[in-house]
Amino acid sequence: MNFILRDENAVYYECGYSNDNALYLRLGEEAWFITDGRYTFEARERVKNAEVVETNDLPKAARAILRRNRVERILFDPKEWSVDAMAKIRDRLPRLSFRPSPDFSHRKRMIKREDEIERLRRAAQLGREGFETFAGYLRKSGVGRREKRLHFETKSAMSHRGEYDLSFDPIVAINANAAKPHALPTDLVLRKGDLLLVDAGLKFERYCSDRTRTIFVGDEIGFGDDQKFTSRKIEKAYDLVRKAHDTAIEKARSGMTGAQIDRLARDVIEKGGMGKAFVHSTGHGVGLDIHEMPYISARGGTTVEDGMVFTIEPGVYFPGEFGIRIEDMVVMKNGRAEIL
Amino acid sequence: MNFILRDENAVYYECGYSNDNALYLRLGEEAWFITDGRYTFEARERVKNAEVVETNDLPKAARAILRRNRVERILFDPKEWSVDAMAKIRDRLPRLSFRPSPDFSHRKRMIKREDEIERLRRAAQLGREGFETFAGYLRKSGVGRREKRLHFETKSAMSHRGEYDLSFDPIVAINANAAKPHALPTDLVLRKGDLLLVDAGLKFERYCSDRTRTIFVGDEIGFGDDQKFTSRKIEKAYDLVRKAHDTAIEKARSGMTGAQIDRLARDVIEKGGMGKAFVHSTGHGVGLDIHEMPYISARGGTTVEDGMVFTIEPGVYFPGEFGIRIEDMVVMKNGRAEIL
Repeated sequence: MNFILRDENAVYYECGYSNDNALYLRLGEEAWFITDGRYTFEARERVKNAEVVETNDLPKAARAILRRNRVERILFDPKEWSVDAMAKIRDRLPRLSFRPSPDFSHRKRMIKREDEIERLRRAAQLGREGFETFAGYLRKSGVGRREKRLHFETKSAMSHRGEYDLSFDPIVAINANAAKPHALPTDLVLRKGDLLLVDAGLKFERYCSDRTRTIFVGDEIGFGDDQKFTSRKIEKAYDLVRKAHDTAIEKARSGMTGAQIDRLARDVIEKGGMGKAFVHSTGHGVGLDIHEMPYISARGGTTVEDGMVFTIEPGVYFPGEFGIRIEDMVVMKNGRAEIL
Repeated sequence: MNFILRDENAVYYECGYSNDNALYLRLGEEAWFITDGRYTFEARERVKNAEVVETNDLPKAARAILRRNRVERILFDPKEWSVDAMAKIRDRLPRLSFRPSPDFSHRKRMIKREDEIERLRRAAQLGREGFETFAGYLRKSGVGRREKRLHFETKSAMSHRGEYDLSFDPIVAINANAAKPHALPTDLVLRKGDLLLVDAGLKFERYCSDRTRTIFVGDEIGFGDDQKFTSRKIEKAYDLVRKAHDTAIEKARSGMTGAQIDRLARDVIEKGGMGKAFVHSTGHGVGLDIHEMPYISARGGTTVEDGMVFTIEPGVYFPGEFGIRIEDMVVMKNGRAEIL
């Protein structure tokens, strides 16, 4: 198979190294890692199973290899390439057929190897420790702080004060702000009796973690699942989301489609009368990228198999009032979902 | 003029609002802001001079408007659009000519309005305050810390503990690591007598700041320009870079090309015998994006005019030894460069 990659994680997956200015080209059994002089030294040390090519003009170097090897057909991911970058390679090779293959690398990466699962497990564990650190901050001095500051402290805790990169910009949202699935931090101040939603993750050796908890800010503050809210509506919503989360994890089986697993969570929330408030899908794959295949959604046609890693994250959202989401990462193992 | 935009800052520039799932379409005097239901409310409040269109299928909504208006030609930036996103609009409109216009929005944004200059000035001022906060940390407890932790503390200081977004991931590099123009933070520990390079910026109302200082970690630690180093080679390099920086700012004039301004800085360093160590260009425009036009480089053909904002950041790099860079943002005003 012939293919050309430019996404940093896609390239890393193929050869164990990557940087922000590289192309990876595979033609049958042969492969090339094309980069500029700033990175050649590192690349020669770390790239596996590919020849390192140093150049000031990456597309030109790729074209030279394609011509030399008389390539007729090559795959690329049209989501990964800008019109400009693709034109720079393709326009001077009119006889070569560039075949779009959407999600090409994500498809290859769907079933994780054991060493990848171990890195994801470690990321999830370090992520939980980050939540615990943030809980300590909340107990000590979180009440009275604005969302913006809480957002900063989440980043501080999740990164273990700079030791790890984050897998995405965290969401930290109070009460009605938690009703926006992608809330940005505001000047709203955290008060006792508030609801607080935190969605955050970090990277361990490039592999991402992703976790969400929604908690009650009472006399005690913690990220345990057993939250009690003073509002009856919030309490009901929380218990429903928690039941949907637990049910999906308990009943998911290898061989089901993403849509069937989505249905497990959605059924619980629909039966509880809050189906319309569950406005997103149940989960997504996680790996080198924070959003990968398989998608656990109503339209998720992928059959889930052992070795796949994805989130289970049902949620309900009441605009102007509050939002609840509970999220964990699972790996499929011996046919069942195990929390990472 | 007809054009279609998807980059968040490009869209914001046209209508004063943007989000992560929007298209902006301009046909002559009419304009449309196309987004999904999560954002319609906010969009209707904040979008100026464009009709807000709510849809679950952005490309489809754009195609409908293009068909209805019988558009024949439309500009797009091929650097901004993925092959996939462009195909979703263009493939079903075979008679419409999509004309690539690289840097379309950046060209429009090159000369800043007064209100933009004021926001950039405020960003630069807040950025300097961030450096001062970080200097306080360094004096109190920086020595003995690893680069990773210093990197985190830079982010903490520059963001004013979460109050402002950063304009890019800061560079914090000790001694030989500073010889890499794009160093990533390592486990190297800061010691007395070290050289420390810090390149960091923040955003004020979406507008970016960008500043670099290289300092000596002695008994006193500060980000003033008047640094003294114990190594004679470093001292010489520092004085040369500082002179190149000051000369370029002093002698830059509206009407010069980017290449001519680059030459002002490069001449100083070449005459000092370190020309080969100045491995990058002298500067770049700054605005909503951290890298914009004009480019102050050997190939920078753009004529610099009043109202343009860009960096002056000469540097010299000695692999395995050290690197020096000094950077400020300037605005062209009454024909001259004024530090923001």
